[in-house]
Amino acid sequence: MIWDQATIELRARNRGFHLITDEVLSQGPDLSNCQVGLLNLFLQHTSASLAINENADPDVRGDLERHFNVMVPEDQPHYEHVLEGPDDMPAHIKSVLVGASLTIPITAGRLALGTWQGLYLCEHRDRAGGRRVIATLQGRW
Amino acid sequence: MIWDQATIELRARNRGFHLITDEVLSQGPDLSNCQVGLLNLFLQHTSASLAINENADPDVRGDLERHFNVMVPEDQPHYEHVLEGPDDMPAHIKSVLVGASLTIPITAGRLALGTWQGLYLCEHRDRAGGRRVIATLQGRW
Amino acid sequence: MIWDQATIELRARNRGFHLITDEVLSQGPDLSNCQVGLLNLFLQHTSASLAINENADPDVRGDLERHFNVMVPEDQPHYEHVLEGPDDMPAHIKSVLVGASLTIPITAGRLALGTWQGLYLCEHRDRAGGRRVIATLQGRW
Repeated sequence: MIWDQATIELRARNRGFHLITDEVLSQGPDLSNCQVGLLNLFLQHTSASLAINENADPDVRGDLERHFNVMVPEDQPHYEHVLEGPDDMPAHIKSVLVGASLTIPITAGRLALGTWQGLYLCEHRDRAGGRRVIATLQGRW
Repeated sequence: MIWDQATIELRARNRGFHLITDEVLSQGPDLSNCQVGLLNLFLQHTSASLAINENADPDVRGDLERHFNVMVPEDQPHYEHVLEGPDDMPAHIKSVLVGASLTIPITAGRLALGTWQGLYLCEHRDRAGGRRVIATLQGRW
Repeated sequence: MIWDQATIELRARNRGFHLITDEVLSQGPDLSNCQVGLLNLFLQHTSASLAINENADPDVRGDLERHFNVMVPEDQPHYEHVLEGPDDMPAHIKSVLVGASLTIPITAGRLALGTWQGLYLCEHRDRAGGRRVIATLQGRW
């Protein structure tokens, strides 16, 4: 049985939806000896999130950012948590909507992603630092 | 220890929210020998999603489809990813909102679902083909 | 290898977003001997949900409740599932948006939560009873 865990330090990014598949694979646990397994990615933050979506056209990522800003706008009269800036409370709401973790199957030493699937960091703050992800691998040889 | 993995080919469905519990159980790994475990279901697509909700009144599934179309309408001026049709970008956004995977506990050889819980394929495209799910079972005898 | 499972009976709460980290830790499986692992929490209900977000300022939880009510209002003309009260269909939609389960890494006998992360029960009904969570622990000594 394989159990492995690594901390991935994602570099700081601008607000928006970003492809991080390569960064996760290069810093995460070695998958190559895992025949069948699961990789759990857990973001240790409350104003960003992890998702899986289209890895090709960057317009998809731009449209996601624009549409999430429509669904969760800044400066709403019902927001009371406002001391950390107008982008802060919307960031918490987006984080709850999208979620802080992913669990991805592994087959024959690789993530079993679909052809068009990539891993996203959804950065909901205007000026965030780097983000930390705990990557936990389990499976069998 | 049990590790098993199977590919589930869901038949093509119309746009909307659909119960797939039976289809998952009939094509997925055999759960009957698993005393304690987890079943992970991972959809290899970016314009559909997996969810868990009410397995009885079909009006719930109709209302979900109608309300997601209010939250994520077609033909918005901020959409730039429009070449694949007006249903495509909303499908990506809905997929990020709902998510591509589920992890369900297993107790005494069965999914430990609540009385009213069923598994949903949320099909966000107007004319999609079949959808592929990787089902990964782990647990102990 | 560790496999353990426990049923957590969350006490009844008012509609809103509630911190349940302590209740989960006190009723869930013993984590102290698990060096590397994962804890899966699965809510057996379709009108509440589980999330992770800020554990400090209670205004965040109030703002979440208020904003989810804006995104998923009661009494919409497109709702057909209305027999169980005006809060019922919105509760199902919120449950699909937020999700019924969480998977959290364990490191050295503890949940590897970020500094500001707490576990939430998101109670979407006006008058719900207690809620049941299946907690499944797996890992290595």
